[in-house]
This record gives sequence, structure tokens and C-alpha cells, in this order.
Amino acid sequence: MISEKMKAAVSGSSVIRQMFEEGARLSKIYGEENVFDFSIGNPNAEPPESIKIAIKEILDTEKPNLVHGYMNNAGYEDVREAIAKNINDSHGLDLTFKNICMSVGAAGGLTIVFKTILNPDDEVITLSPFFGEYRNYVEAYGGKLVIVPTLTGTFQPDLAAIEAAITPKTKAIIINNPNNPTGVVYREETIKAIADLLTRKSEQFRSCIFMVSDEPYREIVYDDIKIPYMLNYYKNSFIVYSYSKSLSLPGERIGYVAFSNQMEDADDVAMSLSIATRTIGYVNAPSLFQRVIAKCLDSEVDTYLYKMNRDLLYNHLVSLGFSCAKPEGAFYLFVKALIPDDVAFAAAAKKYNLLIVPGSAFGCPGYFRLAYCTSYEKIEKSLNAWTTLAKDFLNEAWTSKEFNIY
Amino acid sequence: MISEKMKAAVSGSSVIRQMFEEGARLSKIYGEENVFDFSIGNPNAEPPESIKIAIKEILDTEKPNLVHGYMNNAGYEDVREAIAKNINDSHGLDLTFKNICMSVGAAGGLTIVFKTILNPDDEVITLSPFFGEYRNYVEAYGGKLVIVPTLTGTFQPDLAAIEAAITPKTKAIIINNPNNPTGVVYREETIKAIADLLTRKSEQFRSCIFMVSDEPYREIVYDDIKIPYMLNYYKNSFIVYSYSKSLSLPGERIGYVAFSNQMEDADDVAMSLSIATRTIGYVNAPSLFQRVIAKCLDSEVDTYLYKMNRDLLYNHLVSLGFSCAKPEGAFYLFVKALIPDDVAFAAAAKKYNLLIVPGSAFGCPGYFRLAYCTSYEKIEKSLNAWTTLAKDFLNEAWTSKEFNIY
Repeated sequence: MISEKMKAAVSGSSVIRQMFEEGARLSKIYGEENVFDFSIGNPNAEPPESIKIAIKEILDTEKPNLVHGYMNNAGYEDVREAIAKNINDSHGLDLTFKNICMSVGAAGGLTIVFKTILNPDDEVITLSPFFGEYRNYVEAYGGKLVIVPTLTGTFQPDLAAIEAAITPKTKAIIINNPNNPTGVVYREETIKAIADLLTRKSEQFRSCIFMVSDEPYREIVYDDIKIPYMLNYYKNSFIVYSYSKSLSLPGERIGYVAFSNQMEDADDVAMSLSIATRTIGYVNAPSLFQRVIAKCLDSEVDTYLYKMNRDLLYNHLVSLGFSCAKPEGAFYLFVKALIPDDVAFAAAAKKYNLLIVPGSAFGCPGYFRLAYCTSYEKIEKSLNAWTTLAKDFLNEAWTSKEFNIY
Repeated sequence: MISEKMKAAVSGSSVIRQMFEEGARLSKIYGEENVFDFSIGNPNAEPPESIKIAIKEILDTEKPNLVHGYMNNAGYEDVREAIAKNINDSHGLDLTFKNICMSVGAAGGLTIVFKTILNPDDEVITLSPFFGEYRNYVEAYGGKLVIVPTLTGTFQPDLAAIEAAITPKTKAIIINNPNNPTGVVYREETIKAIADLLTRKSEQFRSCIFMVSDEPYREIVYDDIKIPYMLNYYKNSFIVYSYSKSLSLPGERIGYVAFSNQMEDADDVAMSLSIATRTIGYVNAPSLFQRVIAKCLDSEVDTYLYKMNRDLLYNHLVSLGFSCAKPEGAFYLFVKALIPDDVAFAAAAKKYNLLIVPGSAFGCPGYFRLAYCTSYEKIEKSLNAWTTLAKDFLNEAWTSKEFNIY
């Protein structure tokens, strides 16, 4: 009785989400402490105490009908103005509330952007490995996802490959910096090169190619890395931001889309984002949390915890013979599997209660993703399992039959 | 630079939302107390105190990473189980958490339902006057909205007209009870008649026609009216519910979809609703408010306030010569305009700072909608403006030129 599209979706649902649910199932059998769930980016770092304080303060001082009521679909003007000012202070821009549309997380932000810009058959470039949900967001509005592989090993953008993929139908390129699933960061020279390429190609084709910069991990960076702010490099950029990771609020669905006044047709874009928020059915980003984040713009989670996790797990895996680009941001490792079949490898890992996501889920077979936004203690406890798993494969004792993976 | 579809949307954006923003503009000029904004269903009744208490209790006793974190896309199992039990207790059903999918309000609930059931060119019947956003939700998934007028004056379903509109392509009928914009209620005999008709037509066409029951106003009823629970009358029903009105939380975007195990392919439907929640880009209903409403299932706003408002405004308008079906639920009056051109009439009303929505926005020209979910004092203060407006028209002093409405 369900639609043809959803029939297909039901039979091939998200590998990440399946793993998440598998983790819950295994936890019931073996105990939560014995299941090493590296499958989903559900942040372990606690939300800053300021969140709780802000919520209570709002409940005690603001009018309930304002706090929980409707506002403009794009969000409360005072909240958007506070966010604009915060961006201006950090990045030397001149945004106002009109340049900000509050969204239901980054996922909600991406969908209102694509609904705003895509005509049927428009092409959107993504760099693989990539977050698999991009396909859903782009195809929902008739767009076609064009996958351009990054450079092997470093996972940095392959400028020549991107250039070759741009056609007159190219409407946007998605840049996810820091990157999910690889954790690599694109530096300023890379961003400049992409911006130059898009400018040149837009002129060549007399088209407008948007940069859609998906930045939920902007604040999760290590070793004093700075993420370039796209609005300073390319006028037709959308910044899609979420507080899911920077404030550990992924369930609350709160984020925003920012763009500059230099964007072509900026007023129409602003209106369209707001309308899209309503017509897609979000109506608006959740109201209380709009007000909460306006009070917590200078708060952040303790990223040092993630750095500790990264170092522990990265060093151990490399010592075992795994190969992996050392991540500079986000909280993922993208590791080469010890056999070409990444799905088989993930199934083998599950034998030791290690839950990982095959690289194929990110358009990059032969690898697997680890989300290390879990506790340090859990990672410590998992190290033996990783050692045993690696030994199984590196001693060539492994056969597919032994693991019953098919 | 924006898409063709959004260009059209930007130029013909929601009349209701435009009025809402016009209200804010006029308030800045004339003072909020002198603008009579009857345009939007932003509830005036305060959320029950239990909401604030529940939020604080959750913040003080539950783990922050659980409260604000990811959960299954369909929502927390314990929250869904609590809702299922609450429904069972009230309506003698045997639902479990599997029959409940948490949604981003009723709007989010309608979109996941339509994404689940619609193939391109499927037809969805709505009874006019109808909430204009239905068109967006249906057309987003390739469906075609088929508008069937209700009976003149009573706004009750016209069974013969519905029967004539059902074709082999009919996939669903939307029932909105209590109704927006008319405030009328469909009684048990009407629901039974519609259910019988759908059963008969499904058999005739060997099709499955879903009932999509949009019930955000279920609890907002007067004079001891009871709204029939659709799952008890028709197995292929979706209940789309929201806490926006019953707990005055419209900005928080929290609701759910419920369906029974007797629905055809119930397991696939459950999985599809959950996947649709993710792929549309909501990911999940906001997490804190899922947990909040589970603690407030027996709370409700004071509907007596709305009844007082209804009586005051309804009686005054009728005394002035307006004609209107007396609403038994929701917080809207749907009134016959004093001239055939409802858009001109709304423009004339604005001269007295009366903000109303023309009936054409609901597919029913010649009428206008008043949302009386405002304060009693505001309604009292508006009565003179209504009197003056009515006199202008009833004395035939009115000309379109005088009001500068074109």
C-alpha cells in the first residue's frame, strides 16, 4: 500500500540507522558496556551547562505564548539578529537578521536550500566519500547528485575532477568541512581554488553555481585549525549550520542557513527559504531552542574530549596496521578495510560487538567509518576487540565462511 | 536564481502569513493594542503550568545527552508507548509504540503520511473550505489535490459529492475535525457515512483509500462535544495529531501520526513513516518536547477562554447582520463577507486595523476567516471596529475607490 519510492527506501534503509538500532538490540543481549557502537554521530560530549541555565531563565522570564508560539517562518528576528552579529564579529561581515533563516537542523537547512535553488534535472556535485543523505535531499526536488571522488588517501578535493564534472546543468556543489565521514579539513587555499573554479565556470556557462557549505562540524576541530568562512570567498554560498554537534543538541533539530547580500537575487532567496520552511512542513525551527541558542552563542562543548578519543583510537588502529587519514576535525575516522569487501568487513567486526558503517554507505567501498564521539572508557575497552579483529584478517586466518557473513 | 516553482511561491505566498507579518507592521505604527489581528491560529491560551514543570524536571533528572540526543527517527520508544497507552485508555484500542511515529507538528505528520502513500498522479480529496497548506503537502509528492465543496451554510461533508469525486486514482481523503477554517465538527454519523463510503469504493475499485484525519483541534471543542476517533471507524486511517493547540505549543513543532495494526501493510507503513521523517530532513521530532509531552498527556489548555471569545465575537457579528455557522470546535469563525469579493472585503477591514483572511485562501471565495484565539479584551476592543465596518457596507456607502483596495 505504500508508494513505489518508499517501498524501495524501506528495503534499502539507512545503513547508519540500521546499525544504530542493531546497537540497541545487541546492548540488550550483551549489556550496553560490552557493545562498541561506532556507528552514529550521536555526540557524547555533554551539552554545556549554559543550555540548561538558558532554558530555565527563558521559562522564568519570558512570556510562554511567545516562547512556544508561532513566529515568522524564518525564525524570531531577535534570534536571527543575534546570530548575524555573532557571525559578523567572527568573520568581518555585515549580515543582518534578513541573511539568516532558522532551520530544523542542518538536514532541514539543506532541504530548504535545495528546494529554493533546484529545477528538475539540475545537477548537484558532491565529493565522495559523502554523507549518504545528500542524495535524498537533492533528489526530493528533482535534482541529480553527481559524485566526484576525492584524492585517494588524503580525501582532499580533486580540482581537475570537479572541473570535468561541471556542466551547464550544474546548480551547486556541496562542501562539507570538516568532513563527514573522513574528518579531513579543507584549508583556505583549497576553498579559494574551488571558489575560483566556480566563478570561472559560472562565467563560462553564464550560469549561477551555488556553493552549499554544510558545516555542522565547524567548531569540532583540533590543533588550532580554522575553517575558512565561505561567505568571504564566494558570494553565491549558503552556510548550512547546526548546533547538533557544537552544542551536542542533535535531537533538538536547531540550526540555520546564512547567505550574503552579495548573493544573486538575495531578497528572493530569503523569501524562498522562509516559504520552503513552511511548505515542506517544518513550519519553523523549534521555538524554545531558537531562543536558547541566542543566549548560548559563545558556548561550546569540550572538543578536547574528542581529540583524546581521536588520538587513542587512531594511534591504536595505525599500530595494528590499519591505514587512515588522520582527521583534523569532526569525530569520524575513515579507515581502509582489511579486505576489499567493506560490507563483509563490517559484518566480521560485529562478531566482536564492534559496530561500524561500511564505506559503501558513503559512496566509497573498501573503507569503513568510525564515529568516535563515544566515551574514552568505551574506546579503551574496545581496543582488544580491534586487536583481535585485525589479527583475524592479518594472519590470513579469515575466510568468509568462518564469519557467516553472507 | 531561485527555482521556477519557488518563483511562483514567492510571488503568491501564504495570505495568512502575509497578514501575520502585516499585523506586526501595523502594530509598530498604531501600537499593538490598536491592531485587531484575527489572521493566524497562534493560540492565546497559556500553555499549562505542567509544561514548565515537566521541562525543569527533565533537565534536573535525566541525562542531557539522552534528552537532547538522537533517538530512533520515529521517536523515543517510551514516549511513543505512553502516547499509545493514553489513546488506548481513551478510545479502547490496543496500540503500542509501533503504531506511533512522532512528527514535527501536524504539518510534519501530514507530509510523512503523504510521502508514504502517494505515487505520482494519485488523487487526494479535500473538502472545501480547506487549510490551504494541504495543497503543498500533497503536491510535494506528485499527488493531485481534488477539492470537493461542503454543503453551503453548514459546511458539513456532501456525501454525494465526495462519492462522485472518488476515482480509481483516489488514494486518500483528508478529514479535518474540528475544522479549520469553519470551526464545525463532524459527528459520529457523518464519520460512519464517510467510512462506509470509502470501504465501498475501495472494494469497487480494488484500491486502498486512506483516511487522513488531521486533528490538531481535537481537544478544542465546546458544549461537551466528542470527536469520534477515526481508528474505531475505518481501518485504513491515519490520525495526524499535534500539541500545537491542545497545549499551546505551536512553535515547538511536536505531534505524532497514529495508525492501527489493522491497516494494510502496517509494518511497511511504520517503517516508511520513520524513514520519511529522516529523508525529508526533519530527522526526528524535537527531542526535549517529546519527553515533555509524555509527562503532560493529561494536561490541556483552558478551552473555556476560547468559548467565551467565540460567544462574544459570534453574537456581535450575527447582531450586525453577518451570517456564519456557529463553530463547535477549533477557534475560527468562517463568516460570509458583505460583498462577493472577499479579498476586497479583507482590504476594507484593514482600514479599521481588522486583520482577517479572505475565504479564497481556503478555496471558498465570498467568506472570510477569523482566528479568535486572541484575548477577550482584544475582541471586546474590536467590537466597535466591526460595527463601523458593517455599517459602511450595509449602508451601501461603500465603493471600492473609497477604500483604495485595488
